[in-house]
Amino acid sequence: MDPSQVEISSMKNLTTENITENVLQINSLCSDARMKYVLERLVHHLHDFARETRLSSNEWMTGLNFLKEVGQISSDVRQEFILLSDVLGLSILVDSIDHPKPKGSTEGTVLGPFHTQEADEMTHGGLMSHDTQGEPLLVVCTLKDMSGNPIQDVKIDIWETDSSGHYDVQHPDRDGPDGRCIMRSDNTGAFWFKAITPVPYPIPHDGPVGQLLKKLHRHPYRPAHMHFMFEKSGYDHLVTALYIRNDPYETSDAVFGVKDSLVVDIGKASAEVARKYDVPEGHALLTYDFVLMTDDETSSLRDQKSREAMDKLGRKVKIVDGLPIPDLD
Amino acid sequence: MDPSQVEISSMKNLTTENITENVLQINSLCSDARMKYVLERLVHHLHDFARETRLSSNEWMTGLNFLKEVGQISSDVRQEFILLSDVLGLSILVDSIDHPKPKGSTEGTVLGPFHTQEADEMTHGGLMSHDTQGEPLLVVCTLKDMSGNPIQDVKIDIWETDSSGHYDVQHPDRDGPDGRCIMRSDNTGAFWFKAITPVPYPIPHDGPVGQLLKKLHRHPYRPAHMHFMFEKSGYDHLVTALYIRNDPYETSDAVFGVKDSLVVDIGKASAEVARKYDVPEGHALLTYDFVLMTDDETSSLRDQKSREAMDKLGRKVKIVDGLPIPDLD
Repeated sequence: MDPSQVEISSMKNLTTENITENVLQINSLCSDARMKYVLERLVHHLHDFARETRLSSNEWMTGLNFLKEVGQISSDVRQEFILLSDVLGLSILVDSIDHPKPKGSTEGTVLGPFHTQEADEMTHGGLMSHDTQGEPLLVVCTLKDMSGNPIQDVKIDIWETDSSGHYDVQHPDRDGPDGRCIMRSDNTGAFWFKAITPVPYPIPHDGPVGQLLKKLHRHPYRPAHMHFMFEKSGYDHLVTALYIRNDPYETSDAVFGVKDSLVVDIGKASAEVARKYDVPEGHALLTYDFVLMTDDETSSLRDQKSREAMDKLGRKVKIVDGLPIPDLD
Repeated sequence: MDPSQVEISSMKNLTTENITENVLQINSLCSDARMKYVLERLVHHLHDFARETRLSSNEWMTGLNFLKEVGQISSDVRQEFILLSDVLGLSILVDSIDHPKPKGSTEGTVLGPFHTQEADEMTHGGLMSHDTQGEPLLVVCTLKDMSGNPIQDVKIDIWETDSSGHYDVQHPDRDGPDGRCIMRSDNTGAFWFKAITPVPYPIPHDGPVGQLLKKLHRHPYRPAHMHFMFEKSGYDHLVTALYIRNDPYETSDAVFGVKDSLVVDIGKASAEVARKYDVPEGHALLTYDFVLMTDDETSSLRDQKSREAMDKLGRKVKIVDGLPIPDLD
């Protein structure tokens, strides 16, 4: 930061038109090529946004104050910037860029702000929700690779709200995790557990993001869903969720998480299923066959899509550590 | 926020390509046409930024955490989001859009995060800085309109750092305002006061914005300057500053504030000036003739520039309350 340690560039006299060029010039000494490229695109879009809207000083100050409030309401259990990213569709977009999915693999969706690291590992058939007001649900899943082979010993995080539409961390008086667990797929790639049927719920809307939604005449609801996260070395980290069909918010999810391939029906346990999983016949049943991609499959598809996107921009790029930077050679 | 109170739109199955369209559709119920337009451009640029950089989930999280820290370090006396906007060149750009200046008028520049509302009104010839370590400076200015007529009774805020490069509010143990005052132009449009010769100083760089500058190999220095703000009903609010020529940071200001027309020389008081303003002959002297625009002159130039910018985008617009919105008729 000592100015004697950095080269001092010489800018032109500033105008509305050349300010972008001047900022890029002064940023150009950055030695991290990827960061330099990200900042270059950020400054371009930020400035074009101001020029195209003819942003007023009042609006600018309103925007900065809004961002300050988003930061100040944030805490360990409240991630208001993730929420803001979610309601602007950025979260789902970044997930789809970072984890591209070919046909046949399970699509990803938004992580949301309510995943925690404190769930206990649970054995197959265990009960993950102790909310007696919820409608009991048996969940039976399989986990395979793109060739149809079962994947065993995958760490699976699962979390859902209680029947009132709140995650455990939203109850200030809670005495431990509930509605969340960690499972591991067995040697046939299967895992099964008991939960409650998910219900729709509003995202936290008593803060600045809620005020933004109100101004936009948007409701804050998410359709009923259950979160899943899959981790195993060699496989692409999958963050996803299953959405219950015919939810009133299925086509207007406040955070844009719903994808057709993730919408499921709640069925009923047949006599055979009831016997096998020790539930009454006709018990509510959710089944799903998840398909994971390997790290190699994902990074090759991601590189290909990066090159296609850069081609559209008319820029020659190289991919370094899986991310594009301009190729100046 | 009650979903029964808002129309629920029906989105398409989400993909990397149509997410932007879906977000714009769900935002389209906003009844404030200007806000709807600003959000439309914001979402477009935010999404294009992610698509063009192929933003990774890790980078996204790094960015959100950075913004959270910017919010959390902010306080009444520390405006880290203004600082962030300053170092990205957004502040100077917004000022130049909102306060366009034709040749002959005084150009504006960044407000910066150190203006306060607590300065006392001072009579002509008063001493605004009580820092005895500073080099005494006599400042003699005039204030005219675009036709050369003096403008009297303009409220003028003036502020500068002490000789150590800190504003009063940066000293935790200060017992009141110093290095700042409010003056009013006399009936010849003149105002004059005693100050100290400005020195270069670093913007606060012990927070997230400082870390960003460091990553970018940028120094945090601003060239020596004195801030001025002019307010009178009927005249366009002018926020500006005068920069001392040949400062080592004149062409690399960390916040992009320097404009050629605002760079001044420190002169010496002639015998006549010395007698008139009661200083020793040869005393350091800064003179400047400020030219204010009227509100009408400014809004007509702003509208014209807005229409030109919108034409470039190929969009038909109407100007409502001085700001463009798409014209859908």
